[in-house]
Amino acid sequence: MAPVAKDRLAALDAHWRAANYLAAGQIYLMDNALLTEPLRPEHIKPRLLGHWGTSPGLNFVHTHLNRVIQERDLDALCVWGPGHGGPAVLANSWLEGSYTQTYPDITRDAEGMAKLFRQFSFPGGVPSHVAPETPGSIHEGGELGYSLAHAYGAALDNPDLLVACVIGDGEAETGPLAASWHCNKFHDPAHDGAVLPILHLNGYKIANPTVLARLPEAELDALLKGYGHQPIYVAGDEPHEMHQAMAAAMDRALDRIRSIQEAARSADGAQGREPWPVIVLRTPKGWTGPAAVDGEPVENTWRAHQVPLSGVRENPDHLRLLEEWLRSYRPEELFDAEGRPSEQVVSCVPEGERRLGATPHANGGRLTRRLPVPPLEHFAVTVDKPGTTLHEPTRIAGALLAQVMADTAQRRDFRVVGPDETESNRLGALYDVTSKVWQERTLDTDEHLARDGRVMEVLSEHLCQGWLEGYTLTGRHGLFSCYEAFVHIVDSMVNQHIKWLKTSRALPWRAPVPSLNYLLTSHVWRQDHNGFSHQDPGFVDHVLNKSPHVVRVYLPPDANTLLSVTEHVLHSRDYVNVVVAGKQPCFDWLSLDEARAHCARGAGVWEWAGTEQGTRDPDVVLACAGDVPTQEVLAAAALLREHLPELAVRVVNVVDIARLMPREEHPHGMADSEFDALFTRDKPVIFAYHGYPWLIHRLAYRRTGHANLHVRGYTEAGTTTTPFDMVVRNNLDRFRLVMDVVDRVPGLAVRATAVRQAMADARTRHHAWIREHGIDLPEVADWTWPY
Amino acid sequence: MAPVAKDRLAALDAHWRAANYLAAGQIYLMDNALLTEPLRPEHIKPRLLGHWGTSPGLNFVHTHLNRVIQERDLDALCVWGPGHGGPAVLANSWLEGSYTQTYPDITRDAEGMAKLFRQFSFPGGVPSHVAPETPGSIHEGGELGYSLAHAYGAALDNPDLLVACVIGDGEAETGPLAASWHCNKFHDPAHDGAVLPILHLNGYKIANPTVLARLPEAELDALLKGYGHQPIYVAGDEPHEMHQAMAAAMDRALDRIRSIQEAARSADGAQGREPWPVIVLRTPKGWTGPAAVDGEPVENTWRAHQVPLSGVRENPDHLRLLEEWLRSYRPEELFDAEGRPSEQVVSCVPEGERRLGATPHANGGRLTRRLPVPPLEHFAVTVDKPGTTLHEPTRIAGALLAQVMADTAQRRDFRVVGPDETESNRLGALYDVTSKVWQERTLDTDEHLARDGRVMEVLSEHLCQGWLEGYTLTGRHGLFSCYEAFVHIVDSMVNQHIKWLKTSRALPWRAPVPSLNYLLTSHVWRQDHNGFSHQDPGFVDHVLNKSPHVVRVYLPPDANTLLSVTEHVLHSRDYVNVVVAGKQPCFDWLSLDEARAHCARGAGVWEWAGTEQGTRDPDVVLACAGDVPTQEVLAAAALLREHLPELAVRVVNVVDIARLMPREEHPHGMADSEFDALFTRDKPVIFAYHGYPWLIHRLAYRRTGHANLHVRGYTEAGTTTTPFDMVVRNNLDRFRLVMDVVDRVPGLAVRATAVRQAMADARTRHHAWIREHGIDLPEVADWTWPY
Repeated sequence: MAPVAKDRLAALDAHWRAANYLAAGQIYLMDNALLTEPLRPEHIKPRLLGHWGTSPGLNFVHTHLNRVIQERDLDALCVWGPGHGGPAVLANSWLEGSYTQTYPDITRDAEGMAKLFRQFSFPGGVPSHVAPETPGSIHEGGELGYSLAHAYGAALDNPDLLVACVIGDGEAETGPLAASWHCNKFHDPAHDGAVLPILHLNGYKIANPTVLARLPEAELDALLKGYGHQPIYVAGDEPHEMHQAMAAAMDRALDRIRSIQEAARSADGAQGREPWPVIVLRTPKGWTGPAAVDGEPVENTWRAHQVPLSGVRENPDHLRLLEEWLRSYRPEELFDAEGRPSEQVVSCVPEGERRLGATPHANGGRLTRRLPVPPLEHFAVTVDKPGTTLHEPTRIAGALLAQVMADTAQRRDFRVVGPDETESNRLGALYDVTSKVWQERTLDTDEHLARDGRVMEVLSEHLCQGWLEGYTLTGRHGLFSCYEAFVHIVDSMVNQHIKWLKTSRALPWRAPVPSLNYLLTSHVWRQDHNGFSHQDPGFVDHVLNKSPHVVRVYLPPDANTLLSVTEHVLHSRDYVNVVVAGKQPCFDWLSLDEARAHCARGAGVWEWAGTEQGTRDPDVVLACAGDVPTQEVLAAAALLREHLPELAVRVVNVVDIARLMPREEHPHGMADSEFDALFTRDKPVIFAYHGYPWLIHRLAYRRTGHANLHVRGYTEAGTTTTPFDMVVRNNLDRFRLVMDVVDRVPGLAVRATAVRQAMADARTRHHAWIREHGIDLPEVADWTWPY
Repeated sequence: MAPVAKDRLAALDAHWRAANYLAAGQIYLMDNALLTEPLRPEHIKPRLLGHWGTSPGLNFVHTHLNRVIQERDLDALCVWGPGHGGPAVLANSWLEGSYTQTYPDITRDAEGMAKLFRQFSFPGGVPSHVAPETPGSIHEGGELGYSLAHAYGAALDNPDLLVACVIGDGEAETGPLAASWHCNKFHDPAHDGAVLPILHLNGYKIANPTVLARLPEAELDALLKGYGHQPIYVAGDEPHEMHQAMAAAMDRALDRIRSIQEAARSADGAQGREPWPVIVLRTPKGWTGPAAVDGEPVENTWRAHQVPLSGVRENPDHLRLLEEWLRSYRPEELFDAEGRPSEQVVSCVPEGERRLGATPHANGGRLTRRLPVPPLEHFAVTVDKPGTTLHEPTRIAGALLAQVMADTAQRRDFRVVGPDETESNRLGALYDVTSKVWQERTLDTDEHLARDGRVMEVLSEHLCQGWLEGYTLTGRHGLFSCYEAFVHIVDSMVNQHIKWLKTSRALPWRAPVPSLNYLLTSHVWRQDHNGFSHQDPGFVDHVLNKSPHVVRVYLPPDANTLLSVTEHVLHSRDYVNVVVAGKQPCFDWLSLDEARAHCARGAGVWEWAGTEQGTRDPDVVLACAGDVPTQEVLAAAALLREHLPELAVRVVNVVDIARLMPREEHPHGMADSEFDALFTRDKPVIFAYHGYPWLIHRLAYRRTGHANLHVRGYTEAGTTTTPFDMVVRNNLDRFRLVMDVVDRVPGLAVRATAVRQAMADARTRHHAWIREHGIDLPEVADWTWPY
């Protein structure tokens, strides 16, 4: 039975043709946007930089999403996965008026259409991919693989939202996308909105067929069922038949979603995971474009990927084909003389915020509420004397996070994600107030699993990142706790997210969204179990290459500083915050008040740890960033106090690593005068850094005293060994730091030579001991700050 | 029908028990390895750092692989995917004697057993994960996700090899592994060996059930069939039944593999892709370990993941349980009084190189043949005068690669991988001599697809990387051509590969393997279509954090230098070579002879480009690295020659970026004297670099003249725009470089101020022009080196 009446069908087709016309127009036309005169070479852009292939399919989906939004009054968002989807999504936004609402200069008339065409892939214009500039989008369409995870992230805790997600068959070959099909195992039909994947098989990538499009049909069907989906197929190329088929598929899918949700939300609550629908849309690549060019087939081949007609300015035949193609949409029926979309076309556009280009969910900052972060006093550790008590910093922060989780139990706008390590990372307090979300069957031996849990654990950093991106871009809050080494798995994703935020910040209409917060723990210095493969502190280097307006990096040296940093990042907006903190017992150095003051400064002198009292300038600065380096620097300071008491030592701790950068390079950067006051202009600075040592040089190379800066850090000298052996192997240990001081401070007493030798001997003694006993020397294992 | 006779069954079980005993022994025992006396606390390691959970399953698989290797005389390799699989694989290697063969100090007797136990997860010992130190391995077991891609890479072009691959159900949640199931679409049964995936569902990760283990059985079955596999299930916990079931499953799988291969290799050659077998092995986590500890169930729960008994030294009850557990394997039956494995156990061990720990494929350098790289003269471009002709460098290199491909047509030991961009990256000449491998159906419109093609294209950088790692670690050659920005997708994989090579280089028994070569093209400066999302030159920064003994980075400035670098990297061993080169038309600067000499030096003065003739020292150095920066520096040099002819300008080009590092930090680093001679000790150096500018500071910060170094590069000022606008936005353009010179060279003529203003005006004029026309100013678009 055909679900769509004849008039409505004609309107849908008109809407689709209008979108196709506008998509092709963006790729080709500089002028004569409405084809009011015959097409001439000078109407054509000098460089043809768009891609046609995916556009007609996306337009088709958009048209049919419009239909169900109208007919069911849906609150919907769409994630457009395919690359180079810009022309289609922009075309639809312009048609529905959300584009003009967002960019008033691009009016919904002939003049605006001409600007819309011209700006596309034009210098200073808009990108070919779906991007932050695109109204209604939360998903960069350039790098592929993340659409479905973004869609699931957006749907979390939005029970009334439908998130459609168009997945290109190119994208479907990526690892992250392949893993994302299993997101339904973590998706609660009662508290989360629905995700409707639309797998768009147009058959080709740039130059190849796609894997999924060429699978035998039975295999594809088995695969999608294996993913926990009920596939609904729509295939063909005859527009009217396809409109009917797609409308029927949409209705079937949405009916099924409603029935799953109603069952899960009913008083007795369905307990099993039901297969969610997936629509498989098989249409020709470059559908409705030129069938053949220069004797080669184009439509429905890989040749339709980019610009099907590439020589339009020079080749009259191409120009003619382009004009025929554009006129095949019958623009005179679709737009009035002023270039406004016809009533028929506009009849297919939803109202107000129901329009996909106007949904507030895609401009999530508009929906963000300030997170209720409780007073840190409830969680802080008491520090009467520095360096005498030990706490696991992440366990202290875990109690804070648990309270935030508890206080958002009704609001449900806070999530913690991570790959199976929440408990191992000492954040287990969260399980006192929520569970890990899990839709599969459970056994009696399972712990902390529930269908409505708000901790998300899956052994895929890609999914964790994708969920949290989708969640924060739709205005909610969260934190990703991750093994430090393996956060590199999402290097490329965080690149895109930082680029997204950088671009968004320059768009006045985009409201600031909650930051994406990383807690990197199980860090490089404490891989006692795992050894070399788990040692990589380079994520900090990676993110610091990106926009300084987005990136923040914190290395709190103890529990209270971690609390202060955590509070800060949870309240912040539009940043990517990287917090590196250990989960192993760590000395408490600062009381909460001291920690707050220290974190606010970002870097400062720890007077109590140094021996420069009364001197104008110290003889040497011992600087540190990170929990383990801080411990070693403090131990070195104690050794110096004991063995070379006449030496004026200053201890500087850095929490906010960007403080080291020039003020012109990062908003947190210190002025040179501040830097010089802290580190001196001419004294040796021995800097013990958590990660790769050259990062500190890269940040501080412009400073006056840079030539005096000597940095110790991780130099890939790793293995399975004891904590102290790790710092020795990388020359970050207390003994080596004292030796560095002796080597670099001029004019020391003769006795210093003996001190240096004693330090070298201590290293040798340590080495022999751990080789024999497999544990650290008691003198370092049981060390505390002695003053 | 039971396939295994009773005696043989008893022997297999003894072998398995022996391996289990040895795995548990490694985790716990410092002494009393054979349990010749009652277990006492001092026999126990002071820190228990191993993981038991996965070991019994891996031992079970190993025992049954041994069986089929013996019975079918198989040439086999196994990729052990699960994390913390070290104890099991080491146990088996020791049992079969390959461990002692590799490490003669660890004898196959009581003394060796004691050392085997002690060294495990002990300082200076061996890691808990399968690692380079593990005989028979090509796969680091620490980071998860890459086992199946490695297995496919190893099987390529090894038609007689069976590559078994144990996939943990934790690992199976990762994106790369999820994508890897589709590798069979790129795997030729005629020319490639077989991959036998063994999906080991032991049910749990660190603290959670796994997704695949909890799927309804019908869904799991559909999923595996959807992946193109024929699943064979083995499930249970009763050892004798499980031995029979596993033996039957192995036989069925191997029979099926043989039949697929025979059909494909027959005279008429089967044309379809047949479903390959997959074994699904469902056993309890921590199988045969303690059933319960302290009243909590352990075996078959997540509690069996790590050490099931953690308080053995302190808790007499735990000590007793451990002794009972160890004695449950009846070691007295398995080892003789001298600690040698019994005849019964050894009867299950294959001979010589058939042993999994002794296969030469896992020590691929032993099988490597030198690649036939033809004379570069056949491909070089003629350069009569620098900067007057243009070539696409990657197209020139593509011809060379095509010849290598042609010359290895019989040997089949060279592959080119990449995500769907070989043609787009101008390497299409490869299709003159081979095709893209593709096992699915083809259509008339497809091009260059064949079942036996040796170019591999899939839209997954993870698969490309995994294949090439598996291929090179088994001794063959290859190249990964990738979009520069998206190579970050494999940041974490390359970390592990570099760590693998670093560790391997220190193991005398591992023969050097071919390098892993990247050709990064479609680079940051030419994203005219794609814009900001496709701009990231940071992979160089990423790899340069890693071992300098493994990492090499080249930025050839033109076609002939790219040829020279390509030849070099194809012949090299044990490196990760990163070559960054453009695919767009680029000036030819050097003849082949000049290019060879320049690349051999890695960095040098281009005398013809400068104006320092006759002067002792130049007034300024213009340095460059990368094709676009080189072009801009040369244009700046020409502008200076025209406008400030009295200025002595030196032009330095850097191909091998590590030359900038201190000699102590990288084997390619220059001595300070060389650096000073090239860059001067006191003159301004304006350095135009391809990537993030601070990298140059991080490499050169120790040099005498570092304070005079001013670097221009990519600073995330990106968008969709013209090539020249990109360099202007990032202040790397010729006009800006001239302004930098004027700003930094002291004592210039008054006229310099006017020159500087003219440059600033040129930038403004350019900006207005491209905003209007969408293309670059003719004066830059048509520029050539004028001298």
